[in-house]
Amino acid sequence: MKPTQLWIFFSLFGTAILQSNTDVQSLLTQLFTTNNYNTLIRPSTNQSAPKEIDISFNLYGITDVDEIEQKLTTTGWLVITWKDDLLTWTPASYNGLDKLYLPQGNVWKPDVSLQNGFSELEELGSKFIQVYVHSSGYIMWRPFQVFETKCDLDSKYFPFDEQKCHLIFVSWSHSSEDISLTQTSNGIDLSDELESHGEWKITSSSATSELEGVISKVKFTIVIKRKPLYMIMNIILPIILLALLDIFTFKIPADTGERLGYTITVWLSFAVFLTIVSDSLPQTSESVPIVSVYIIIQLFMGTLVVLISTVEAGLVANPDSVPVYKMLRFLALRLRRNNVKSSEDTVMKIDPEISEVTWKEAITAVDTCLFLICMGIFFITTLICFLIVAL
Amino acid sequence: MKPTQLWIFFSLFGTAILQSNTDVQSLLTQLFTTNNYNTLIRPSTNQSAPKEIDISFNLYGITDVDEIEQKLTTTGWLVITWKDDLLTWTPASYNGLDKLYLPQGNVWKPDVSLQNGFSELEELGSKFIQVYVHSSGYIMWRPFQVFETKCDLDSKYFPFDEQKCHLIFVSWSHSSEDISLTQTSNGIDLSDELESHGEWKITSSSATSELEGVISKVKFTIVIKRKPLYMIMNIILPIILLALLDIFTFKIPADTGERLGYTITVWLSFAVFLTIVSDSLPQTSESVPIVSVYIIIQLFMGTLVVLISTVEAGLVANPDSVPVYKMLRFLALRLRRNNVKSSEDTVMKIDPEISEVTWKEAITAVDTCLFLICMGIFFITTLICFLIVAL
Amino acid sequence: MKPTQLWIFFSLFGTAILQSNTDVQSLLTQLFTTNNYNTLIRPSTNQSAPKEIDISFNLYGITDVDEIEQKLTTTGWLVITWKDDLLTWTPASYNGLDKLYLPQGNVWKPDVSLQNGFSELEELGSKFIQVYVHSSGYIMWRPFQVFETKCDLDSKYFPFDEQKCHLIFVSWSHSSEDISLTQTSNGIDLSDELESHGEWKITSSSATSELEGVISKVKFTIVIKRKPLYMIMNIILPIILLALLDIFTFKIPADTGERLGYTITVWLSFAVFLTIVSDSLPQTSESVPIVSVYIIIQLFMGTLVVLISTVEAGLVANPDSVPVYKMLRFLALRLRRNNVKSSEDTVMKIDPEISEVTWKEAITAVDTCLFLICMGIFFITTLICFLIVAL
Amino acid sequence: MKPTQLWIFFSLFGTAILQSNTDVQSLLTQLFTTNNYNTLIRPSTNQSAPKEIDISFNLYGITDVDEIEQKLTTTGWLVITWKDDLLTWTPASYNGLDKLYLPQGNVWKPDVSLQNGFSELEELGSKFIQVYVHSSGYIMWRPFQVFETKCDLDSKYFPFDEQKCHLIFVSWSHSSEDISLTQTSNGIDLSDELESHGEWKITSSSATSELEGVISKVKFTIVIKRKPLYMIMNIILPIILLALLDIFTFKIPADTGERLGYTITVWLSFAVFLTIVSDSLPQTSESVPIVSVYIIIQLFMGTLVVLISTVEAGLVANPDSVPVYKMLRFLALRLRRNNVKSSEDTVMKIDPEISEVTWKEAITAVDTCLFLICMGIFFITTLICFLIVAL
Amino acid sequence: MKPTQLWIFFSLFGTAILQSNTDVQSLLTQLFTTNNYNTLIRPSTNQSAPKEIDISFNLYGITDVDEIEQKLTTTGWLVITWKDDLLTWTPASYNGLDKLYLPQGNVWKPDVSLQNGFSELEELGSKFIQVYVHSSGYIMWRPFQVFETKCDLDSKYFPFDEQKCHLIFVSWSHSSEDISLTQTSNGIDLSDELESHGEWKITSSSATSELEGVISKVKFTIVIKRKPLYMIMNIILPIILLALLDIFTFKIPADTGERLGYTITVWLSFAVFLTIVSDSLPQTSESVPIVSVYIIIQLFMGTLVVLISTVEAGLVANPDSVPVYKMLRFLALRLRRNNVKSSEDTVMKIDPEISEVTWKEAITAVDTCLFLICMGIFFITTLICFLIVAL
Repeated sequence: MKPTQLWIFFSLFGTAILQSNTDVQSLLTQLFTTNNYNTLIRPSTNQSAPKEIDISFNLYGITDVDEIEQKLTTTGWLVITWKDDLLTWTPASYNGLDKLYLPQGNVWKPDVSLQNGFSELEELGSKFIQVYVHSSGYIMWRPFQVFETKCDLDSKYFPFDEQKCHLIFVSWSHSSEDISLTQTSNGIDLSDELESHGEWKITSSSATSELEGVISKVKFTIVIKRKPLYMIMNIILPIILLALLDIFTFKIPADTGERLGYTITVWLSFAVFLTIVSDSLPQTSESVPIVSVYIIIQLFMGTLVVLISTVEAGLVANPDSVPVYKMLRFLALRLRRNNVKSSEDTVMKIDPEISEVTWKEAITAVDTCLFLICMGIFFITTLICFLIVAL
Repeated sequence: MKPTQLWIFFSLFGTAILQSNTDVQSLLTQLFTTNNYNTLIRPSTNQSAPKEIDISFNLYGITDVDEIEQKLTTTGWLVITWKDDLLTWTPASYNGLDKLYLPQGNVWKPDVSLQNGFSELEELGSKFIQVYVHSSGYIMWRPFQVFETKCDLDSKYFPFDEQKCHLIFVSWSHSSEDISLTQTSNGIDLSDELESHGEWKITSSSATSELEGVISKVKFTIVIKRKPLYMIMNIILPIILLALLDIFTFKIPADTGERLGYTITVWLSFAVFLTIVSDSLPQTSESVPIVSVYIIIQLFMGTLVVLISTVEAGLVANPDSVPVYKMLRFLALRLRRNNVKSSEDTVMKIDPEISEVTWKEAITAVDTCLFLICMGIFFITTLICFLIVAL
Repeated sequence: MKPTQLWIFFSLFGTAILQSNTDVQSLLTQLFTTNNYNTLIRPSTNQSAPKEIDISFNLYGITDVDEIEQKLTTTGWLVITWKDDLLTWTPASYNGLDKLYLPQGNVWKPDVSLQNGFSELEELGSKFIQVYVHSSGYIMWRPFQVFETKCDLDSKYFPFDEQKCHLIFVSWSHSSEDISLTQTSNGIDLSDELESHGEWKITSSSATSELEGVISKVKFTIVIKRKPLYMIMNIILPIILLALLDIFTFKIPADTGERLGYTITVWLSFAVFLTIVSDSLPQTSESVPIVSVYIIIQLFMGTLVVLISTVEAGLVANPDSVPVYKMLRFLALRLRRNNVKSSEDTVMKIDPEISEVTWKEAITAVDTCLFLICMGIFFITTLICFLIVAL
Repeated sequence: MKPTQLWIFFSLFGTAILQSNTDVQSLLTQLFTTNNYNTLIRPSTNQSAPKEIDISFNLYGITDVDEIEQKLTTTGWLVITWKDDLLTWTPASYNGLDKLYLPQGNVWKPDVSLQNGFSELEELGSKFIQVYVHSSGYIMWRPFQVFETKCDLDSKYFPFDEQKCHLIFVSWSHSSEDISLTQTSNGIDLSDELESHGEWKITSSSATSELEGVISKVKFTIVIKRKPLYMIMNIILPIILLALLDIFTFKIPADTGERLGYTITVWLSFAVFLTIVSDSLPQTSESVPIVSVYIIIQLFMGTLVVLISTVEAGLVANPDSVPVYKMLRFLALRLRRNNVKSSEDTVMKIDPEISEVTWKEAITAVDTCLFLICMGIFFITTLICFLIVAL
Repeated sequence: MKPTQLWIFFSLFGTAILQSNTDVQSLLTQLFTTNNYNTLIRPSTNQSAPKEIDISFNLYGITDVDEIEQKLTTTGWLVITWKDDLLTWTPASYNGLDKLYLPQGNVWKPDVSLQNGFSELEELGSKFIQVYVHSSGYIMWRPFQVFETKCDLDSKYFPFDEQKCHLIFVSWSHSSEDISLTQTSNGIDLSDELESHGEWKITSSSATSELEGVISKVKFTIVIKRKPLYMIMNIILPIILLALLDIFTFKIPADTGERLGYTITVWLSFAVFLTIVSDSLPQTSESVPIVSVYIIIQLFMGTLVVLISTVEAGLVANPDSVPVYKMLRFLALRLRRNNVKSSEDTVMKIDPEISEVTWKEAITAVDTCLFLICMGIFFITTLICFLIVAL
């Protein structure tokens, strides 16, 4: 039976007779003064057997996912239940009083702690939290907490990444022969409002209890998935547009006096965009996001386009008396013939090979080739990156 | 009767006779020592009936609205009132002393907590806060607090968005048969100075008490509306101006050698503006703000304008010996005829169709068309976006 | 008499006879054990009359002024004095011992709190602070505190704005018939070192005590003025220089092929500057700073200059066969005549009206006019803005 | 004798005989139970004489220097020593036990506080810190603390500035006739590892004890000097390079169509650099750093260069029929004659005055002059600024 | 034997007989009430001998490395073990009960503190942490903590730097004759999950115990190495690409009217990149990173390239009537001859020396030389920097 069900069960059927406040008072006196209850002593009549502690976890919200520190911050509450052999009574003796609410400091509690936590180890809950004590000795404790846990975050597939994080609870000081942690729920109880986090959504969760040497653990696992829309719109899309702009450099004739200004301004836009991107990308060297690799490739190509343009600017300014390099001449002639073929219906019938190739024509031919090559590389890299990331 | 009215009522008529400090001392002795008051016991002579707790909320200020974490931070104070059956006395026995001020730790208090809170669960108020106890047992407690609550923030209509947030108070440990929360006020009491928040204004508020299973809740709702002026002036206006600048690219003749420099610098300005915008827009993938979509559309159009310009730069550099594409030729001739028509009063009577169309004229014709088309798209998208957002 | 004067007065004349530590011990025993002092009881022999509490405020420093949250953070200490009827003794009985220092937790203290505070309500001072108790029952308490107060900040005249902030102290739980707050000082005591804050200087301060219904208040008011130098040098000056650069666009001949590049780069500089400015300006929609309006006007004018330039670039490229628009022609002729008049001493005697107006000349004429008009608008808007702000 | 020496002295010679834990127990019983030690009573047998408290300060590290809030944050520990007349015993009676370690809360301590502090006034040390008590009554207390102090920071000579900050300790509640603070050390004890702070180095320190009215003070002074290397490399150097680039505008012929693009891009670079600089410079209006003034001067000159360039662009485009302004003509002729003189060995023997001056030649002459003038201004302002700052 | 082994050892063999909770109760009564245990007394029957405290350190994670404050923040737990002579008992008397778990506040603990810490000195652990007490008196205490330690960070070899940091633990108040710290582990125990930090990896660790005067220390040393990939991809690579772009300026003919625009835009890109770089580089003046020096060199070279370009723009615009400077003429002729030699197979047989050198040819010659020289400098500086950094 789940703890919350237990609570409802007890609540519904437990309180039929009328009790007054003096009944409560006399019960408290009996339990704490007469019986001499000591919060330091594990409440088992048999101290040799471990005390069984059941833990379930209600996740309320994700606060932060930090790729550098590899940290996950969550908010939620635990429901911790156990049987206190020393806090039992016969309800009939107290006019049917079958439950008590006590501040958590007034009873023995297991020292349940986050094993993979990040901040100083503090007691769960606060002085203010009250535990529910049933006359049969069952105790339910519901500390509401902010948990900072270490989590192996792999941002390789950013922004389509999925992360698996654990919250591992142990009894910090006791071994498994003193305290044994168990869990009966199948997973983390997710609050209804959880879906509305801005950047992450929870895809699944699970819970297991393990025994590692003398340490008894309960391990809650959540799998979270980044919502990529913001990143696509603000990082990936502009980079793709920029890469396109860059390639179209080769459409600008080399001798118009606009090409170098255009191409270097595109490069400058790359630099400006990197100022935004470098703030948004996970700044970790652990596993390089494929998006970063993609950006680097585009930056490389952008640089190459600029360098080629400067060289072409030098060549196209050559006087026609300087002979065109053989390779360029060959390329230009090949291209000229293609054009002729594709426009055979025109009256142009001059043999393309005879007339001399000018520098300008050669550079134009090179540009046409480079435009197609770059376009190809752009589509192939974009496709590959997206296939890797999205699959 | 509202709690504050209650207080004023009590204050005005309660203290006619002279009391000395020894009266107070003897009353305290009577209540706490002789009667053996225990803060752990719910102060009802009938423990089977739930204790009624009235909550009202005075909102003092909004501190933060966080779209990523979906969090609202507010400052304010609660007025919590209930009847303590065990703290009653006959004023006449104490020279007419009819009220006491006690530190909140000295009396039983309900464990009222924020159900949809974000930080660790702590007791409301502080040791320093004093409760007002009337001789009839009525207790008023006014904890002043900073509340962090989860709130479903939908930034779709940013910066014209209106958000509805709840502050839900429950008794964290007790079920509704032990403690029953009620509220008599109709809404949140807003402090006079509240209007002056820099970014948000409160449009309305309400309060309801609900019973959900065995959990008794009081739910305060505030509706806040963003003041859009800053965002309009710093984000939307510059983007609109930029889009305009971009369209006017087509007014620049393609052969002046200035056009590509102009158009790519406008694009660069887009990139620079996005560095500001991306800091100001809510960085959430939950619901994409329409403003973001608008910016993306403008960025797309800007890119297209640049690409077209590069292609035109190539075409306009064609020697006139290369024949003009048929479609361009057709367009140029249509336009030429229009011009002739509109200037029929001039002496130009040459048949427009006869004279040959140059590349330059063709490109100019294309530019004229594109200018009108872009202008149209710009007006339509701007209108649609604003209609969606503002309605 | 001011509290500090009181202290000095007591200090100088009070301690003539030799006391030993046993005198102190016996006095403490008398007061706290024998007399059974209870910190919960208001120390008045007449509980019907309100206890008078005098508050004065020593401001030590301004920590933060937040325009968004409308918050002022200050550091300083209060001097709170009152008469405790139950802590009086005859110095002669204790070898002339006429004063005691006690931790603030050991005596009754008024629950003085900041009414317009921002953070959780906590007790003033700390356990460590000691109160000065004189044998006549006068108590002086000096809690040193950081105060966060709500303050209506109006950034309209930024960076020449003057803000008026209040620190309102009330007794949080008690009504005015229990505790009555007064103040005898005329204003806030400013520490000598206060002048040295980096961004704000305090121009004046005042203090009043008010009675609002049953609530007794002491209200300290400080008027702070922003030191505008940093903002002038880093925001206003560069914007003015940029606006000037923009207007000089019209000095560049439209056909040099440099004008559009120039004007769009100036616009880009605007965008870059806005990235700095938007960080420094108060980001509030409450009252728009006139500086922001000024920047928006300049941005509008900048955009207009660019748009006009693109249109002019189109016109100036017209072949001379296309007739010049009539209005432009008229403008150009007017200007030509003016020039001729002003240079009548030259030998140029050709009738200006006869020779035909070229596109180039027309555009030059337009530019000359626009330069003067823009210069005028620039001076007028700058003047108006500065007059509004500075007065 | 310095406190630490005292400690070593005591430590070395104090513990010759064997003591058991029961000796400690009986001593504690004697001192605290039998003698009825009260931490509220100043431990002087003569309460009329002030208690002398010796303070020395070990500085461990500088955490933050905040120019806006005028705040210095340091880490270090105090060594506070005094004589407790009531905690003395004869070691012989306890088997030679001559020292005790007690938690700081168990003995009377002076309420030493930072007078010019910034945060809430809290007790020094923590419950955990133990004081060393010698049998002669000498007590040594070493609280380790983070101190936030107000400090008059003058950033005029940034980044070569030297700041003088005080840490003033007083007894917050007691007058000088109750507690008298002294210091025997000559300065602050600097820990060895202190030198390694990233931005500041400590040049000297001193300590004095003062009596101001009835207030006894100990004042520790540290003088810190900024390490300017980072700022020089990242702010000053790029600005100087930019200024140089700007001046070389005049080397570009006015009619190449590249000059305006060049000069306005240099101006844009200024704007971009200011985004970095404005983050790094102290954002205070108190005293404007000379570096800021220098940057403003360069920005002004940069603007002037652009404006002159636009005007020149207009003039150089004048047809030669328009007569050259007289002043420009005169300048051009002067320069031409100079050139002729300096190249008298050439065969050029034409009288420079006869041939007419073209607009182009005139502008070139102006450029040559302006280049020299700007270069001069640049060197002079740079020199002056550096002389002021560095001296 | 290592403490954890000790724990396991005790755990495995210690609990054979059945104990009830009353056994625990009677043991607690015996130890604390009957024996009158006092947490203030060092639990040695011989108070003259120092108490030996063994410390080992389990590092769990690195939170922050701050180059400015020279601070390392780590998370981990200490295992502190010692023998308490006063907490021993015979298990047989308590049905074989041989261990106890007690809150850390209930027993004497050594005041182990971080000597080179940064924050206020607080007790290790928290009230909630429980110590393990064995019947033989052995106590194990495992406080989980966040440690802020001063660390000499040398960022010279950034981003290939390796840092060595110490965590030095001392007994804050006691001398070595009271408490002696030892360590038996050989190094820091690293948790398995430690490898996954985003920016740093731990290469080695060690532990030593030292005696410095009367101060007993345990010193844990960790050596951490930065993972350079992120920095290489986001800072170093773009800077290298930029430097390359800059050098290719010399490939652009000086008279195309594109060169100055190109070169100054590259410079602007430098400025933009420095805005990113200055955020990522350690902002310390202590030791300048070689990367910073490299960037400064590239910035210098970039500026020089721009300056040379402006001068060349002036020269190339000279009319051919102005004689070419001798040095340029010599350079151009040398180059011409080289070209002729390398193309001796061509029919060009004109004596290169005879025909006159134009300004354009001279500038082209200079460009060719400068391109080679700059390329050389670029390769050499890049090589040197990388050799220094990587070795």
